Amino acid sequence: MANPQHGDLVFPIEEYQERVRKLRESMAAKGMDAVILAMPQDLFYLTGYQTPGYYWFQVLVVPLEKEPFMVTRLLESSNIPARTWIKNSRPYADHEDPTKILADAIKEFGLDRATIGYDRDAYFFRAFEQEGVISKLPNAKFKNCTGIVEQLRMIKSPLEIDRMERAARAADAGMIAGINAVRAGVNEDEIAAEIHNAMFRAGSEWPAMSPFVATGWRGAVGHMTWEHRTVEEQDYVFLEVAGCYNRYHAALMRTVTVGETPQRIKDGEKVCLDAMAACLEAIKPGVPASEVDTLARGIIAKADVEQAARTAYSIGIAFPPDWGEGHIISMRQGHDMPLQAGMTFHLIPWVQVPGHGGVGITETIVVTDDGCRVLTNVDRKVFSA
Amino acid sequence: MANPQHGDLVFPIEEYQERVRKLRESMAAKGMDAVILAMPQDLFYLTGYQTPGYYWFQVLVVPLEKEPFMVTRLLESSNIPARTWIKNSRPYADHEDPTKILADAIKEFGLDRATIGYDRDAYFFRAFEQEGVISKLPNAKFKNCTGIVEQLRMIKSPLEIDRMERAARAADAGMIAGINAVRAGVNEDEIAAEIHNAMFRAGSEWPAMSPFVATGWRGAVGHMTWEHRTVEEQDYVFLEVAGCYNRYHAALMRTVTVGETPQRIKDGEKVCLDAMAACLEAIKPGVPASEVDTLARGIIAKADVEQAARTAYSIGIAFPPDWGEGHIISMRQGHDMPLQAGMTFHLIPWVQVPGHGGVGITETIVVTDDGCRVLTNVDRKVFSA
Repeated sequence: MANPQHGDLVFPIEEYQERVRKLRESMAAKGMDAVILAMPQDLFYLTGYQTPGYYWFQVLVVPLEKEPFMVTRLLESSNIPARTWIKNSRPYADHEDPTKILADAIKEFGLDRATIGYDRDAYFFRAFEQEGVISKLPNAKFKNCTGIVEQLRMIKSPLEIDRMERAARAADAGMIAGINAVRAGVNEDEIAAEIHNAMFRAGSEWPAMSPFVATGWRGAVGHMTWEHRTVEEQDYVFLEVAGCYNRYHAALMRTVTVGETPQRIKDGEKVCLDAMAACLEAIKPGVPASEVDTLARGIIAKADVEQAARTAYSIGIAFPPDWGEGHIISMRQGHDMPLQAGMTFHLIPWVQVPGHGGVGITETIVVTDDGCRVLTNVDRKVFSA
Repeated sequence: MANPQHGDLVFPIEEYQERVRKLRESMAAKGMDAVILAMPQDLFYLTGYQTPGYYWFQVLVVPLEKEPFMVTRLLESSNIPARTWIKNSRPYADHEDPTKILADAIKEFGLDRATIGYDRDAYFFRAFEQEGVISKLPNAKFKNCTGIVEQLRMIKSPLEIDRMERAARAADAGMIAGINAVRAGVNEDEIAAEIHNAMFRAGSEWPAMSPFVATGWRGAVGHMTWEHRTVEEQDYVFLEVAGCYNRYHAALMRTVTVGETPQRIKDGEKVCLDAMAACLEAIKPGVPASEVDTLARGIIAKADVEQAARTAYSIGIAFPPDWGEGHIISMRQGHDMPLQAGMTFHLIPWVQVPGHGGVGITETIVVTDDGCRVLTNVDRKVFSA
């Protein structure tokens, strides 16, 4: 029985060194001597650390020059030698105040008079925890550093794209199994069972959100998923699946009709395919993200359907509750940043056909040097069961 | 195709009325005219509202006398008529500031000079969002109300126990499928596939955490789960599964040895079973939660093994990232509250056998009027594959 080793790093050590180097460059530019990071995505990106147990306080502190260190729950701290290159950790016992352990560690490592960035917007660094740390370090200066790692995560390296391709293979397998399971008389639960069975056998790890399986009227309600309903003749079935590999995600949507596909749904399918084709043609480095949204909206507005959401959201490393990272960059009005090679998106120009239901035919894509490449691979159409 | 109706409430309306009545009693005692609640568990408990999309801002405001109202993302607001009894909602568009919409709604409903409780410790009500709301309502007085709904959620009604029994049936099915899948040469991914396939066919909805499938050395690292490792001869395999029904969870752990079970693991099994039997005998209303922990620790300390964690944590309604609610009440040192009928726990007197691995044989239980009842139902032993 082998013991966990640093050899279990997801990527070569040089990948992490480069990520930390870029982070420190950004810290220096913002005048920060150290940053306290709390989003599980950021911890994983910089160190390889992961656990589903982030409902207990956990942070990574990266100083400008000295060794980074972590403060985690004692029960989780075995993940540090098993998964990361981090040498220093100061775990806390369940009955201890983690903010005191963190403040003590900041003193121990000589940062208690430093200018410290902290991730003010992180879900898992709550208001009272922020106050707990700040109040214990009266000589430090605190600044909001939200987004400092996300700006790096926005552009994926070739190694990261490789992991997203593996996630896409698992998502494809789950989606195909889901499509094949749809028929009148089947229960939503059985469709979900088939999707999971196939996607995990195809190599998916636990996704940041479960797949969406919404049948009949349930497809018109926001984010409904399987809940025991039996599929009926003439139902529409909405499926959305994300696969996960090394915490990297790739997702896609498909729609299945039970029985003959009504003309209105065929019209919806055509609009979705037209919008998708136009987006895939338009996406390349330099194009503002919002411009792709404008393009899709223009095509969809000409038809008698409603665009259901933004046109795309960034996707990559994810932990529950969200498999996307659309707050970093989305293709929507107001997000005017030019696209860059290595950005990855779930491209979702999907529609609601009034009085009928949703038609979703979507793909995960990567922006390349001269255009984009589709990572997911399931027939791009409305399926009929 | 039926439209969503209020008939889709999980429980009869009287159950919700009673919950809100108790909440208002507690608010009145604390001098609060209204509370802003943000934990998805609390929203579900009081109204039936649920969506996996709580990575967008969503709150329920309950005034002492007037109608409660919700502020959610527009895309999710269709869940309000489909799933809840709530009449008033003020959704926001993706490009709007939700804290402004909430502050405006608080003014509209005449609460802008009120004393308002807010859930300061909620993950999904972040520091900047709290500040955003508070700064827009200079004439209101804000107080922390964290835990005000959790104190009610701690005691489950007969209807809630019924849902936990259904969750337990699904957890049992997943666990049995997982145990049956273990053998030398099988991949962790395949074991995970079998567990999910069985638990969803047995009626489980999406659980708040994925099952744990940790084989060989991976079982000794905190919260590791399936990640492509192939099971070897003489491995120990750690399995932990929670089923979910109407968001109520029930969980259990089992250990499987591949090949003959070593004597040290058999000794660990005996300690676990002795501790479990003693806990089940001791648990009844009036006994302090910490006393059960002391009892289990005493039995485990006599053997040459280490207790891996607290003795039990409360379990019930859950959304990611945690299927437990141990912060409400756990059986651990310092939690001295007397047990009450209707409390539900995942009872986990599990151990690490030094140099070997973990032995986990655990159950979900409910405290009854004169003792306790075990909800999960899989042979209580170390399995051998």
